[in-house]
Amino acid sequence: MNRSELLSFRQEALEHLTTELLPFWVERMKDEKNGGYITHFDVNGHDTGEDEKSLIAQTRCLYTVSSAHRAGYGNGELAGLAKHGADFIINKMWDNEHGGFYWMMDRKGEIKIDKKILYGHSFAIYSLSEYTLATGDPRGIEYARKTFDLVQKYCTDTYYGGYFEMFSRDWVLAGPGSQGGDRKTLDVHMHLMEALTSLYACSGEEVHRRKLLEDIDLLLNRINHPVYKTGIPQFYKDWSIAPQIKFDIIWGWDRFSEEGQKGNATDNTCYGHNAEFAWLLIHALDVLNIKPEVYAETFRIIFDHTVDNGIDTEFGGVYVEGPHSGGVYDKEKEFWQQAEVLIGLLDACLLFGDEKYWDAYKNVHRFVFDKVINKGVGEWFPLLTRHGEPIWTHMGHSWKINYHTVRSMVQSIERMDKIAAKL
Amino acid sequence: MNRSELLSFRQEALEHLTTELLPFWVERMKDEKNGGYITHFDVNGHDTGEDEKSLIAQTRCLYTVSSAHRAGYGNGELAGLAKHGADFIINKMWDNEHGGFYWMMDRKGEIKIDKKILYGHSFAIYSLSEYTLATGDPRGIEYARKTFDLVQKYCTDTYYGGYFEMFSRDWVLAGPGSQGGDRKTLDVHMHLMEALTSLYACSGEEVHRRKLLEDIDLLLNRINHPVYKTGIPQFYKDWSIAPQIKFDIIWGWDRFSEEGQKGNATDNTCYGHNAEFAWLLIHALDVLNIKPEVYAETFRIIFDHTVDNGIDTEFGGVYVEGPHSGGVYDKEKEFWQQAEVLIGLLDACLLFGDEKYWDAYKNVHRFVFDKVINKGVGEWFPLLTRHGEPIWTHMGHSWKINYHTVRSMVQSIERMDKIAAKL
Repeated sequence: MNRSELLSFRQEALEHLTTELLPFWVERMKDEKNGGYITHFDVNGHDTGEDEKSLIAQTRCLYTVSSAHRAGYGNGELAGLAKHGADFIINKMWDNEHGGFYWMMDRKGEIKIDKKILYGHSFAIYSLSEYTLATGDPRGIEYARKTFDLVQKYCTDTYYGGYFEMFSRDWVLAGPGSQGGDRKTLDVHMHLMEALTSLYACSGEEVHRRKLLEDIDLLLNRINHPVYKTGIPQFYKDWSIAPQIKFDIIWGWDRFSEEGQKGNATDNTCYGHNAEFAWLLIHALDVLNIKPEVYAETFRIIFDHTVDNGIDTEFGGVYVEGPHSGGVYDKEKEFWQQAEVLIGLLDACLLFGDEKYWDAYKNVHRFVFDKVINKGVGEWFPLLTRHGEPIWTHMGHSWKINYHTVRSMVQSIERMDKIAAKL
Repeated sequence: MNRSELLSFRQEALEHLTTELLPFWVERMKDEKNGGYITHFDVNGHDTGEDEKSLIAQTRCLYTVSSAHRAGYGNGELAGLAKHGADFIINKMWDNEHGGFYWMMDRKGEIKIDKKILYGHSFAIYSLSEYTLATGDPRGIEYARKTFDLVQKYCTDTYYGGYFEMFSRDWVLAGPGSQGGDRKTLDVHMHLMEALTSLYACSGEEVHRRKLLEDIDLLLNRINHPVYKTGIPQFYKDWSIAPQIKFDIIWGWDRFSEEGQKGNATDNTCYGHNAEFAWLLIHALDVLNIKPEVYAETFRIIFDHTVDNGIDTEFGGVYVEGPHSGGVYDKEKEFWQQAEVLIGLLDACLLFGDEKYWDAYKNVHRFVFDKVINKGVGEWFPLLTRHGEPIWTHMGHSWKINYHTVRSMVQSIERMDKIAAKL
C-alpha cells in the first residue's frame, strides 16, 4: 500500500464530503415552516413535495448531522441543524399516551401511520444518543433511555431470545406473515447493535452494555450462517430460517417479486449487510473495550466472502446479493452497499493489513466516485445497473437519505487516517 | 369418592382457616408502631423481636390477607390489614432512586440489605396485583406494573431467554457462583408465572399475557425434565443443568450441607415444587382462557410422580425430594410441601377424577391436621421428622410465613366445593 495513493483517496473523500454531500443536505433539509427535516428530493435535488416524514429518515438525518458535527465538520453549524431535528422527533413524533415513536408523519407533524416498529426505534436510540454525544443536549440520551426501556418491555422474546419487531400503536404484537409479528430479522438485530453501541457509549450503564453483548451473541450465533458467517435475512421466532418476505410496513425500498417473496428466499445473503455487520461489530467491541482479535477468524471469513463474491472486478462496485456458499444472484449496484463495504474494507486493512482488501477498497471507491455520485448535484444515485447506469435517480426519500453516504465518508476518512499513521 | 367424606374434610379445613390460621395472624401481624407486618414468632406464637422485615415476608403477608379477603373471609377486616401492609411496602421498601424494592429492612423501615432480587420482585408483582383485585386500591397495580417494567428491563436474558435473578441495588448483574448472577432457577421462573398470572388477571394487558405465555414455555420446555416433567432446580444461563448450590442471599431456609451444595446436586427434584407448578399452571391457563386439557399428559405425569414417589404411605405426608426417575432422598417433611401438594392433588381430582389422587389427598390432609398444625397455637411447624416430630418449631420468620398455609386452605376449600358440586 502506497501512502501517497492512500492520501489521494482520502482527499477525494474529504472533498466530496465537505463540498458536495454536506452542503447538499445543509442547504435543503431544514423544514423552517414545520420543523424537522425535508427528506424527498429528485434527481436534481429539488424538493418533490412528498408529504411524509418517516421515523427512519428523521432519525437518520439527526444521526448524520450529529455525527458529522462530532467528527469536526460543519464549523459548528450542524449542531443547530441537529437540535432542529431533535425538537421535531421529540416534540412531534413521540407518543405521549403509549410511549415510543410513531412510524410516519406528514410534513406538518400529523400522524400518518401510528404503528410501533422496532427498526425505527433502533434508529431513534442510535441518533438520539449520537445527538447527546455531539451536542451535550441531555434530551437526546433521556429519550434514548426511555426508548430502550420500552424496547426491553415490549419487544424482547423471553423464551427464544431476541426481539419481536412489529407492533400496533399500543405495543400489541402484530400478526404473522406479512404483518411481521412472527419474524425476526438480521436487519433489526444488526441495527440494534449499532444503536446499543452508541447508547452505551453515551450512558456507560451496565444494562446497556449487557444487552449489547447479548445482541452480539444473537448476531454471531443465531443470525450469521454457521459456516460462511454471512447474514441470514429472516427467521421465525424460534430462529429457524424463514423465507425472505416483504412486510406490509416496509423500511426500505426493496425489490421483491410480485409475490412479495424474494427469489432464493431461504439462501440469500447481502454483501452490504455482511460488511456493515463486520465494521459495526468492530466498532462495538472498541466501545466495549474488547479486542477485535477475539473475533478475528469471523471477520476474516466475512471480509473474504465479500471480496471473493461481492466485488465486481470487471465493472467495479459491490453486487447486491448471492448464495451463502458463494456466487452472485443479483449483479445490480445499490448505493448503500457501496457505502458500507467501503468502511468494512478499510477495517479489514487495519485488522489484517492484506493488500487484497485495499485493492477491493480502491475498486469500490472508484465505482462510487465515477458512477454512483450524481455529479454537480452531490448525492448518490440509489440504484444502478451492473455497468453503472442509474436505474433509480431520486436523491432522497423516506428510505434513502444521507445516513449511509455521509457516514461512509466520515468513517472512511477516519480509517484512512489510521492507516496512514501506520505507513 | 364419598360426598360426606369430602365435606367433612372441607369442614376441617374451613374451621382451621377461620378459627386458627387467620386469627393467629390477624391478632399478631400488624406493626402498629412502625407500619408493615411483624413476621417472627416462636413456637408459642410470641414475637421473637427479630429486627427484620424481608421483602418476601411483607409481600407474602400482603398476598395472604388480600387473597383471603377476596375469597370472602374476615368480614372485611382483612382489607384494612392489607392496606396497612401495602403502605409499608410502597412507602418504605420502594427505592425511589433506582426503582424496585429493597431486599431487607429492619422493623422501623431502615435498609438492611439493599440488593435487588428477582424472587422478591416476583412476590411484589403477585401480592400488589392481588391487593388491587381484592380492594380496588389502584396503587397496587400501579406498583406491580412498575415492577414488571423494571424486571423486563433489567432481568431478561435476551440471548438465551429467561431471567437473571440477582442484582445490586442499581441493578448491576451479580457475579457468578454463590452470588447467583450466572444461574437461573425453577423457583424464580415458577413464582414469576404465579406473579404474571395475577398481574394479567388484574391488568388485562397484552404484554403481561405474552410474557406469561413465554414463561410457561420456559417452565415446560427448559426447566421441567424432558421425560419425567419434574422440576430441575438450577441451571446455568444457557439452560444447561447446574449443581444445586446455596446462594449468598437466600430466600428460603434450605438445608444445604456445609459445603453449600446439595447432596445429589444435579439429580434432585422437589415434590412440593412439582405439585405447586402443576396447580399454578392450571390456574394460569384458566386466567388465560386456555383449556388445561391441552397439557393433560404433562399434568398426569407430574401428579403421578408426586403420588408414586412423594407420598409417605406409611407415616403420612409428603417427602422433601428425590431423583427425577423415582425414589426418595430426603424423607423429612416440610410444611410448605404439604400445603402445595394438597392443592395440586385436588386439581388432579378435578382434572382426572381418579380415586388415587383423592386417597393421596386424604393421606396428606390427615398428616397436616394430625401432625403439622401446632395445636392450640394455630400455625404449622416448618419441619418435621418422617414420623411427624417437629424439628424446627418457629411459627414465623423471614422465609416462613402465612402464604403457603392460608393459601392452601383457601384454595383447597374452593376446589373441594367444585368437586362436591359434581358429586
